[in-house]
Amino acid sequence: MASIGEKTNLDVFKQHESEVRSYCRSFPTIFTKAQGYKLWDGEGNEFIDFFAGAGALNYGHNHPKMKEKLMAYIESDGVTHGLDMATTAKEEFIEKLQSTILSPRNMEYKVMFPGPTGTNSVESALKLARKVTGRETVMSFTNAFHGMTLGSLSITGNQSKRHGAGVSLHNTVVMPYDNFIDNQTDSVQYIERFLEDKGSGVSKPAAIILETVQGEGGINVSSFDWLKRLEALCKKLEIFLIVDDIQAGVGRTGPFFSFEPAGIKPDIICLSKSIGGYGLPFALTLIKPEHDIWDPGEHNGTFRGNNLAFVTATEALSFWEDDTLTNEVNKKGEKVQEFLKSLAEKYPKLNGSVRGRGLMQGLVCDVDGLADAICCSAFEKGLILETAGIDDQVIKVMPPLNIDDKALDEGLAILEESIKEVLKNK
Amino acid sequence: MASIGEKTNLDVFKQHESEVRSYCRSFPTIFTKAQGYKLWDGEGNEFIDFFAGAGALNYGHNHPKMKEKLMAYIESDGVTHGLDMATTAKEEFIEKLQSTILSPRNMEYKVMFPGPTGTNSVESALKLARKVTGRETVMSFTNAFHGMTLGSLSITGNQSKRHGAGVSLHNTVVMPYDNFIDNQTDSVQYIERFLEDKGSGVSKPAAIILETVQGEGGINVSSFDWLKRLEALCKKLEIFLIVDDIQAGVGRTGPFFSFEPAGIKPDIICLSKSIGGYGLPFALTLIKPEHDIWDPGEHNGTFRGNNLAFVTATEALSFWEDDTLTNEVNKKGEKVQEFLKSLAEKYPKLNGSVRGRGLMQGLVCDVDGLADAICCSAFEKGLILETAGIDDQVIKVMPPLNIDDKALDEGLAILEESIKEVLKNK
Amino acid sequence: MASIGEKTNLDVFKQHESEVRSYCRSFPTIFTKAQGYKLWDGEGNEFIDFFAGAGALNYGHNHPKMKEKLMAYIESDGVTHGLDMATTAKEEFIEKLQSTILSPRNMEYKVMFPGPTGTNSVESALKLARKVTGRETVMSFTNAFHGMTLGSLSITGNQSKRHGAGVSLHNTVVMPYDNFIDNQTDSVQYIERFLEDKGSGVSKPAAIILETVQGEGGINVSSFDWLKRLEALCKKLEIFLIVDDIQAGVGRTGPFFSFEPAGIKPDIICLSKSIGGYGLPFALTLIKPEHDIWDPGEHNGTFRGNNLAFVTATEALSFWEDDTLTNEVNKKGEKVQEFLKSLAEKYPKLNGSVRGRGLMQGLVCDVDGLADAICCSAFEKGLILETAGIDDQVIKVMPPLNIDDKALDEGLAILEESIKEVLKNK
Amino acid sequence: MASIGEKTNLDVFKQHESEVRSYCRSFPTIFTKAQGYKLWDGEGNEFIDFFAGAGALNYGHNHPKMKEKLMAYIESDGVTHGLDMATTAKEEFIEKLQSTILSPRNMEYKVMFPGPTGTNSVESALKLARKVTGRETVMSFTNAFHGMTLGSLSITGNQSKRHGAGVSLHNTVVMPYDNFIDNQTDSVQYIERFLEDKGSGVSKPAAIILETVQGEGGINVSSFDWLKRLEALCKKLEIFLIVDDIQAGVGRTGPFFSFEPAGIKPDIICLSKSIGGYGLPFALTLIKPEHDIWDPGEHNGTFRGNNLAFVTATEALSFWEDDTLTNEVNKKGEKVQEFLKSLAEKYPKLNGSVRGRGLMQGLVCDVDGLADAICCSAFEKGLILETAGIDDQVIKVMPPLNIDDKALDEGLAILEESIKEVLKNK
Repeated sequence: MASIGEKTNLDVFKQHESEVRSYCRSFPTIFTKAQGYKLWDGEGNEFIDFFAGAGALNYGHNHPKMKEKLMAYIESDGVTHGLDMATTAKEEFIEKLQSTILSPRNMEYKVMFPGPTGTNSVESALKLARKVTGRETVMSFTNAFHGMTLGSLSITGNQSKRHGAGVSLHNTVVMPYDNFIDNQTDSVQYIERFLEDKGSGVSKPAAIILETVQGEGGINVSSFDWLKRLEALCKKLEIFLIVDDIQAGVGRTGPFFSFEPAGIKPDIICLSKSIGGYGLPFALTLIKPEHDIWDPGEHNGTFRGNNLAFVTATEALSFWEDDTLTNEVNKKGEKVQEFLKSLAEKYPKLNGSVRGRGLMQGLVCDVDGLADAICCSAFEKGLILETAGIDDQVIKVMPPLNIDDKALDEGLAILEESIKEVLKNK
Repeated sequence: MASIGEKTNLDVFKQHESEVRSYCRSFPTIFTKAQGYKLWDGEGNEFIDFFAGAGALNYGHNHPKMKEKLMAYIESDGVTHGLDMATTAKEEFIEKLQSTILSPRNMEYKVMFPGPTGTNSVESALKLARKVTGRETVMSFTNAFHGMTLGSLSITGNQSKRHGAGVSLHNTVVMPYDNFIDNQTDSVQYIERFLEDKGSGVSKPAAIILETVQGEGGINVSSFDWLKRLEALCKKLEIFLIVDDIQAGVGRTGPFFSFEPAGIKPDIICLSKSIGGYGLPFALTLIKPEHDIWDPGEHNGTFRGNNLAFVTATEALSFWEDDTLTNEVNKKGEKVQEFLKSLAEKYPKLNGSVRGRGLMQGLVCDVDGLADAICCSAFEKGLILETAGIDDQVIKVMPPLNIDDKALDEGLAILEESIKEVLKNK
Repeated sequence: MASIGEKTNLDVFKQHESEVRSYCRSFPTIFTKAQGYKLWDGEGNEFIDFFAGAGALNYGHNHPKMKEKLMAYIESDGVTHGLDMATTAKEEFIEKLQSTILSPRNMEYKVMFPGPTGTNSVESALKLARKVTGRETVMSFTNAFHGMTLGSLSITGNQSKRHGAGVSLHNTVVMPYDNFIDNQTDSVQYIERFLEDKGSGVSKPAAIILETVQGEGGINVSSFDWLKRLEALCKKLEIFLIVDDIQAGVGRTGPFFSFEPAGIKPDIICLSKSIGGYGLPFALTLIKPEHDIWDPGEHNGTFRGNNLAFVTATEALSFWEDDTLTNEVNKKGEKVQEFLKSLAEKYPKLNGSVRGRGLMQGLVCDVDGLADAICCSAFEKGLILETAGIDDQVIKVMPPLNIDDKALDEGLAILEESIKEVLKNK
Repeated sequence: MASIGEKTNLDVFKQHESEVRSYCRSFPTIFTKAQGYKLWDGEGNEFIDFFAGAGALNYGHNHPKMKEKLMAYIESDGVTHGLDMATTAKEEFIEKLQSTILSPRNMEYKVMFPGPTGTNSVESALKLARKVTGRETVMSFTNAFHGMTLGSLSITGNQSKRHGAGVSLHNTVVMPYDNFIDNQTDSVQYIERFLEDKGSGVSKPAAIILETVQGEGGINVSSFDWLKRLEALCKKLEIFLIVDDIQAGVGRTGPFFSFEPAGIKPDIICLSKSIGGYGLPFALTLIKPEHDIWDPGEHNGTFRGNNLAFVTATEALSFWEDDTLTNEVNKKGEKVQEFLKSLAEKYPKLNGSVRGRGLMQGLVCDVDGLADAICCSAFEKGLILETAGIDDQVIKVMPPLNIDDKALDEGLAILEESIKEVLKNK
């Protein structure tokens, strides 16, 4: 299969698409079809997908049940586009979200449709936190990733993406994520010290925003204790706690919301990616009712009501009527983690370590360029894998949650083969 | 039909959706089905759509040909989500855009997929203009509307939406749109005066961004001469000219690009809304090749490659293989404008005036609350109409471009009835 | 006297002083002594001073009466430095300011000592206007000059000085000064149009700040009618009117406050330069009592109470016990203006025009580099003259107000000689 | 002496001076005369000055030698005001600074006169660091105090002073000062961690600015080791190191520059307060020659050349021709520190601790309002003392450096009496 991409003619993209294109460079072939954990290209190659649309395909590609509902809706001329007008598709989604997700967890939240992408949700969360508190600063964390529009970018850590703004980014203050400095310094205490001293130069922020597991930042995992103490600090000082659960949520780390095991209740929750179920553009902002002081249309947008996504999202929520999926993720997550740990041990040249939660696992390779080379080799062997971290030093293992054991084993085996090959050629 | 919405139970929305919801308040019923220029609600009411998804439905709802292609693609398990990986759906779209739109117009542009909404496109345009020029300021116009994320909001005029940012908005300078001050002051000369005097306090901007016809701002129409002179100024001073053609483009004012009759070639063009054809989230940024200096992934996002939208967008471009649609729009546009002018004359209490281009027409009612009341009355009579302008003083007439004459007449008749009714009750 | 500066050894300055030094380049000699309108250098050259410390020496150098008071105070060990502690010198100044200046004009103002320079006063004015109104934006004018610290710089027009900030400058909006665009466009109406339209993108500012005659900006004179209408607009919209009277005040244009003939009462007045009388660092901020809501020490600084300056400033106010000085300034101002006009007529190669008020007069030479060359030649002939305007195109005639007629004539004669010489060599 | 201030009529100040006045509230009497470490008021009360103009009077009030030179200069009509024209007074100062201070220390620096106050110097330093590096961010420390104009305020920690800006303050990032978090966390390592991780969200700053001993911030002392390591970090990363030595410099902590014992050479040094010697407004910015890339006049101001201050400053530098003063300060500093420590031990109700260096000593009283009460009581007993720290919790002991032993003892005795009295009444 060394010939993958070889025959593929990517000229149309090279000639006409902007240089900003990225994944089509890592995976240089033209894909034609997808199903579950599999993708096929025009040359007939089959790929196992350990990338899952960067977390947008927790249920795999083109899930048959969602597909059925989607086609029926389109067939019947259900409203496709209607801005944020009320439709039956939307009504059903809202009801299912309440009955399946929020009510069983005793979570009282209003749902906002802020536009169909994660960054829309983050921008809406920042606006609302600032509006309710009347404060301007938002506190974020090292290596956070929240999106590419100017507000979200201002709380994103990646230096080259920040630089891309072309202007300086304001009204934010960055604090060390759990374990950022070293394994001893307690970053919650650190934050508290800054906030309690009125001469620190850090004013009380409108909100603290975080990912419980940082995806793009390199699969950095915060402890439940850290989250709990951060929530307590926020409560004490009346600071909004915003959890950006766009990548870590919707079961990726096990539970529906990644923060459930910490027992916290954020003031605002951002969801996107897999909430739509089928990979369609879709995002939600969940808001504690007492904070829902928006004026009508104060934040708006053309694609707030993606009705096709309502249909697939509603169907997707059926996965959460019991604990089956969560249990599955936990089990598979352990398996993946153990396997990665064994790789780190077996191949000391990786200078490897493992971190992650659920099916959001990372193999850190502390050797320049190594992780990239392994992913590249894996692609040629039929496995799609992405790197993460500021130096692309982490191999991110994120298969669809419902991948079967056989495929999971197969993918992991390809990963090991790729490691062997790359290390051999070093 | 006075009972529209009466029996409708909107409780789910009222209880669980955020207060930010807006159009579902203007059109208080639950829609179930849509086709062409028609919408139906759950009570069996039928509506003529003069709103067209705020310009996202130039081909009407659920166009049969696009629907067919869309269903076939889904049926065949074509890739739905794949971030910005290369797919056949994407390849076909890029080729069709080149062959149908760009090549025939001698327009050499690279296409960027900045995320699936208009504001993503605008944010990407601002970033790129700043990157290429190394300057920070962007010049925009009074009553402009470019989106709700922080970068786009900074160049949007609406005060209450700006206020919603919760932070002050920087690196922008606002200039008077054509005819903003009065009908004599020449705003291009004004801008030039500021830019030529090194003591003016206005530094040379990275870009000037504009809509040729301002949609949300109140159907303000700039003259082709004004556009031409602005382009000349930009060229002279090496300032980027960015046209946000999100609402006015894709035939809404007649030609595919709204600026074609002015004979200008912007450095960057933002497209969204109707470019997807079927109302699916989709956006493009067109970039002159010499400016395409993005680093791979410098601007990214999860939903850059909405393959379902590629499919419908490709089909939609078929409308542009000849001038039929443009001619139709011009003809219908004239008809609408004449009708609106006759209303303004016939009903002096409207304190009315008319402005617009193509099928983007506005009836300005200079009486507080009047336009809103008329749209409200129209809804009860089965016509969906939106207001625009900072004081909601403009009735915006924006039917699907391919609406038939009979329906157009019918809709206009309802508008007149609504005016009569409202004026009678005053 | 063509040898001025020739023998002077400026090595100490060249070797050890920063490249930022400026006037010592225009006037390349070492001054040793000064009296009234005269300066002497170490080579025994005598100079007539038409520069007057850029407006800081309205009473000339080392006025004998102030000198006497100053020496007596120092001799008696009066408090020199005491931060803002109460001293008799300060008490006497405050009383004299009330009795001589404020009471006779029915001006009720609190006096603040914001630090001893103009920019301190401007920064304090901006802070207070923002505090009282709760708004952030400050509106300033093209070609304004308010100082070099970051707040004052943000409302200064000069592009290269702004660039010197090294960061982008925020929370300000610049409007056209009287006659900036052309002689027809009414800039008050223009501002009003922006402020009345809630979609203009210009939010209501905390304050409008202006100089009635722009000094550094090129002796641009605003009409009393323009000032009156601007004050009316500010009152209507509850915007602070701040007059920066640092250069134009203290009699420079005739009356003590430059805005008196316009009949306006600004909310805040900034004074510095000649208010100290003797050229010592000193500044005031005058505040309408109802706006004086500072917390103690909210704005502070080490040199708020320059007691030596209190002593000379108190003495200087004696000049204002009657109209003598104002009348003198008006008379001399007319004379200067007429003379400059005659020059403009007589020497068409100057491409000259004249503008100014009182003893703040400018001869605009619309030929590149000409004004500079003339001032340079004048210096060699024993006359100290500065240029102003963004292109150094204006010869600024600003002698001490109490210069005698003979010296004034002599200086003007040197100016004409210099013009002749420069034009001859062209 | 309990009657101090009782008979004093402060009406003029209360009626006519702004509410922003501060020290005249702490020391409510009208001062008439000052000499050395003594002040007298109009009621004939005599005060020992442990405040020394917040560090501006290191040589005491009205030093006889400086007074003599000053009077002779004024008498001879030496140039008082001349903007930044070359004068003999200025030339002599520059030469003396080179020969007495810079050359003996092998310090090659250009001297800039940025305007006559500390904040002018800080603003000029920030501008230059940004200009040379092309970067925007400046890193400052918790509890820093650098001035009240917008640039300096942006790097000042005090929350209420920051709030006074009325706008949000940008382009700065605050880091923990030595010992800010606790006594274990190493803040240099912390800073390094942020700067080395390209995903930290903290970009490489133009400069790091610091006080070696924070005055207003509460007499916080950084260790020489910390300074050394910070300088090393700055060198490694090509970041400017700016030392604001406005309060701690000019011998206050012993050596002329407070950082000398650390063996560092900052890129820029800010001096003001005591550099003028006599308490006149004066400030310097010292710049390493390779960074002196200012354009002429790029930073300017009316009072850059305070010639009276040149005269006294030149005389004041005579103190630094040998080590006498440094040795004296060290000796007296030890004495003061020991005495304060004994007070902290003797009066446990103070909840006291002591910190400081040289004659910049602080007695921290960790009881709400206590330090203020003690200073208030001391004033009534004839001792002038200021508090520092964000909660005014530190009694700042800062007598003139040349105070004699008897007066020092006397002052300390009054301090103890005041403590006794206040604690008794608790």
